[in-house]
Amino acid sequence: MVSVIGGDLRIVKLVELLAKDDFKIYTYGLEKADKLKDNEKVKFCDTIEEAIGLTKVVIGPVPFSSNNIDINAPYSERKIKIQEILCNMAGKALLAGSIKPEIENEAKQENVNIIDLLKKEELVVLNAIATAEGTIQVAMEETSKTIHGSNILIMGYGRIGKVLSKMLLGIGANVYCEARKKEDLAWIKAYGYTPIDLANLKETLNKFDIIVNTIPTLILDKSHLQNVNKECLIIDVASMPGGIDQEAAKELGIRTLWALSLPGKVAPTTSAEYIKETIDHILKEI
Amino acid sequence: MVSVIGGDLRIVKLVELLAKDDFKIYTYGLEKADKLKDNEKVKFCDTIEEAIGLTKVVIGPVPFSSNNIDINAPYSERKIKIQEILCNMAGKALLAGSIKPEIENEAKQENVNIIDLLKKEELVVLNAIATAEGTIQVAMEETSKTIHGSNILIMGYGRIGKVLSKMLLGIGANVYCEARKKEDLAWIKAYGYTPIDLANLKETLNKFDIIVNTIPTLILDKSHLQNVNKECLIIDVASMPGGIDQEAAKELGIRTLWALSLPGKVAPTTSAEYIKETIDHILKEI
Amino acid sequence: MVSVIGGDLRIVKLVELLAKDDFKIYTYGLEKADKLKDNEKVKFCDTIEEAIGLTKVVIGPVPFSSNNIDINAPYSERKIKIQEILCNMAGKALLAGSIKPEIENEAKQENVNIIDLLKKEELVVLNAIATAEGTIQVAMEETSKTIHGSNILIMGYGRIGKVLSKMLLGIGANVYCEARKKEDLAWIKAYGYTPIDLANLKETLNKFDIIVNTIPTLILDKSHLQNVNKECLIIDVASMPGGIDQEAAKELGIRTLWALSLPGKVAPTTSAEYIKETIDHILKEI
Amino acid sequence: MVSVIGGDLRIVKLVELLAKDDFKIYTYGLEKADKLKDNEKVKFCDTIEEAIGLTKVVIGPVPFSSNNIDINAPYSERKIKIQEILCNMAGKALLAGSIKPEIENEAKQENVNIIDLLKKEELVVLNAIATAEGTIQVAMEETSKTIHGSNILIMGYGRIGKVLSKMLLGIGANVYCEARKKEDLAWIKAYGYTPIDLANLKETLNKFDIIVNTIPTLILDKSHLQNVNKECLIIDVASMPGGIDQEAAKELGIRTLWALSLPGKVAPTTSAEYIKETIDHILKEI
Repeated sequence: MVSVIGGDLRIVKLVELLAKDDFKIYTYGLEKADKLKDNEKVKFCDTIEEAIGLTKVVIGPVPFSSNNIDINAPYSERKIKIQEILCNMAGKALLAGSIKPEIENEAKQENVNIIDLLKKEELVVLNAIATAEGTIQVAMEETSKTIHGSNILIMGYGRIGKVLSKMLLGIGANVYCEARKKEDLAWIKAYGYTPIDLANLKETLNKFDIIVNTIPTLILDKSHLQNVNKECLIIDVASMPGGIDQEAAKELGIRTLWALSLPGKVAPTTSAEYIKETIDHILKEI
Repeated sequence: MVSVIGGDLRIVKLVELLAKDDFKIYTYGLEKADKLKDNEKVKFCDTIEEAIGLTKVVIGPVPFSSNNIDINAPYSERKIKIQEILCNMAGKALLAGSIKPEIENEAKQENVNIIDLLKKEELVVLNAIATAEGTIQVAMEETSKTIHGSNILIMGYGRIGKVLSKMLLGIGANVYCEARKKEDLAWIKAYGYTPIDLANLKETLNKFDIIVNTIPTLILDKSHLQNVNKECLIIDVASMPGGIDQEAAKELGIRTLWALSLPGKVAPTTSAEYIKETIDHILKEI
Repeated sequence: MVSVIGGDLRIVKLVELLAKDDFKIYTYGLEKADKLKDNEKVKFCDTIEEAIGLTKVVIGPVPFSSNNIDINAPYSERKIKIQEILCNMAGKALLAGSIKPEIENEAKQENVNIIDLLKKEELVVLNAIATAEGTIQVAMEETSKTIHGSNILIMGYGRIGKVLSKMLLGIGANVYCEARKKEDLAWIKAYGYTPIDLANLKETLNKFDIIVNTIPTLILDKSHLQNVNKECLIIDVASMPGGIDQEAAKELGIRTLWALSLPGKVAPTTSAEYIKETIDHILKEI
Repeated sequence: MVSVIGGDLRIVKLVELLAKDDFKIYTYGLEKADKLKDNEKVKFCDTIEEAIGLTKVVIGPVPFSSNNIDINAPYSERKIKIQEILCNMAGKALLAGSIKPEIENEAKQENVNIIDLLKKEELVVLNAIATAEGTIQVAMEETSKTIHGSNILIMGYGRIGKVLSKMLLGIGANVYCEARKKEDLAWIKAYGYTPIDLANLKETLNKFDIIVNTIPTLILDKSHLQNVNKECLIIDVASMPGGIDQEAAKELGIRTLWALSLPGKVAPTTSAEYIKETIDHILKEI
């Protein structure tokens, strides 16, 4: 028995997965999710109180809110206030994604056990799989070359960098990974990619067909961009402020794309499975 | 010095590559290819005679013609008759793709050395790379799951099957390959995919998220399709008649896609490079 | 019910596998195989006639004979004449490996259905797996460098070349494959190795840490060997006459190893499984 | 200009690499390294004072000492006291491997800048490459099956686990990785291996042909070992106390191997290159 309040297509699919697992699910803010209507495990509630009242665990949107006032609920006509949820949740657990510190504080005051799914390393790693695939899809759609045989630079060897480099090599690209730490450069070498020390980045930039940035820090400034091949496509998957001086790129005529929130866009079903897996583990712990 | 008559975006890019290699290129039927206009190596001729007259080698469209009367020339307003080309080519070589037997015969009578690029095993193998990537792109676009972790069946272990299975495994799919010959099944095992003997195909069909057919022979008939998972996507990349009973699939509510001519669509630049490579080798031989 | 006459460790293990599959096995020439003694499915016969008399299928050594007179039977004190076997086998099938044409002829005259296992493409492909691993083991044992990061050339892109290049890339080597046919070079590129055209072989030879030859034709003659790095190890896995001028190599101080019959040496259990698989398929056909 | 005191074959090879890089090298305790004798960049000194006197950086053995009194110096007849080195090194840097805390303390008192190479994450990662290959070599030598197609369990997903699993998959094994943390299990899934939660380890143990332990904590106790297949080979590459109850394994008739210090044994040349790379980076920093 769990409650699910609001959320996008991934949450809808999550509800289906929970139902398959024989959970009874009380929902609110999903009334436009037609696929759930015939599912007898799913109860559509008329009020938040009803949806939350009987359960110990409430699952909210991923990400939770865009404005810190209402939660994200594209499958509902209603505006659902965060405040309204929290004040019904004393002693219960709230699982959602990307919860802002002020909301966390408020929750604590209301004695809510708040768990940010996107702070669960497990889910962040799994999401990197979907982000990496989404990046590859974008690269395929936006270039007239095959990935196979292309020279591709990945900037940053964090989670996305690791998964993406593996996949690109698997398709047959010549994969270069940029990192700052010697330790990361050693890993890059161990996995069979060509390591590029940040210190030597500039002089290598002209050889790439595609550059993917994964680091939310400006690295490709104008002086770097001047070295980039004019036919190169730069894909930025890092969150704000990204790693590319967009204006300079525009001036120089270099094509850049900012691809955000890929998991939910390109693979909502798999993303729902990841969330489900993570929630399963959390439920065993709380 | 070569002539290039007609052709699609790949041929336009091929002309650019030839120009980079310092060939002088006489073109006809490419007058709308604006990118070529400033290229001083490229001469736009007003007649076929002028375009062909000075050279020994004429490059035509890939594929050559759709109706066996005119050649394919989407970058031209003109209709260019095959007959008109052939009658100016005695003693010369004509390189193009997918040339029909009747045209080949005619060419021989006119003493033209006709070479079908798409019969060059080298180019067919290279094209399989682009076809495989195109298939992956389609699979990514048309499903809500990641390729990673999906159960994917590839029917037929020919050129496309080989390249596609390698790439899919590289992305992290669970790859199953169906073949009929024991020898092919041994190769499938050697490369690390799960072999499925055609004889046992039917009982395994329900486990797949994606099925890709590469064999131009009907295999997935109604009795097979009944075993296919309703959420499975079937992509047919085989030429006519394909391998799937489309009507039965429709009836059963199984989504099928027929994806043809992928190299030119998803990767015209790389395809042009492949054609260039093959032509380079041919030019050394003739 | 099958008969097994003679053979090495692989055949002993094959008998165990057949016993597990509930075959009753009549053996002759395996009396020193102690592991089989407690196996109640295995009958040790005192004469060839007894061993062969009741069955339709006789499995012999792989390879069959070294001198074309006696079969290979290291697990026996006896000399077992080929002639003696054949004259008891009219109307039966004899499965063995590497059977010489003169024996095949004789067999036909005696009305024996002779099947050379090592001509079954399926088994030859599977054996390439074991040969490739054996080659890697030898390379690891005989060099003071890791395979990872080494520059390795594979000469010949046949069965062994294909499997070996895949495995070496999987370990992290820089893999170069030499071939003569453009088609093979296209495949080498498709699979992500660096293709080397035989025509350009000589000038690339100095960069390799390890060279593996798979072609039974002399290619690395003195003029080639002079370009080979002095610290390079050359492993020849091709059958007679091999691909290397051994004398020239010696003179030049280049280390060469001739590694033959690897499957039986490095992986007798797996080799037995391969033989078993192939025999299973043959039994369904005859 | 650097000093090198003592050390094994890797240090000898390191001296050669440093000489190639145009370093002048003062050595002591390497007098039996014949290969260095003709190298004009290498000076053999008669006393420690001479060897250390002119340089700022002294490179010592990896590992430094087995008894905390003398350093490891297999290429010397002399006993070289740690004390004797340290008292000549005020204001200089000493680079060596696995330095015990008491030695570090002493060094600090003598105003020596002591740097433990084996605490440099970069070198530890690179060494994992050689350890992984050494493990594969051992597995190949000690089993009668191919790695390809074998079921292999790797216990622990640290540095060695990561590199080893990648290589084994590259050869074609069915790779299972055991870990305790959900985050590691997510990574294992992302890289395409089968994750096994420590909590479920016991019931899966019977399916493996090879088990490699990388964790220096007893996990495979008697109750676990009873589930292990009798034909399984267990390779322990973890340092003392290892992860296997050796006595219980013996009783149960399960073959175990303890493979330690693999990098220096199986790939001294590459290990020297790793050390060289790490030292290069340190020299830029100090």
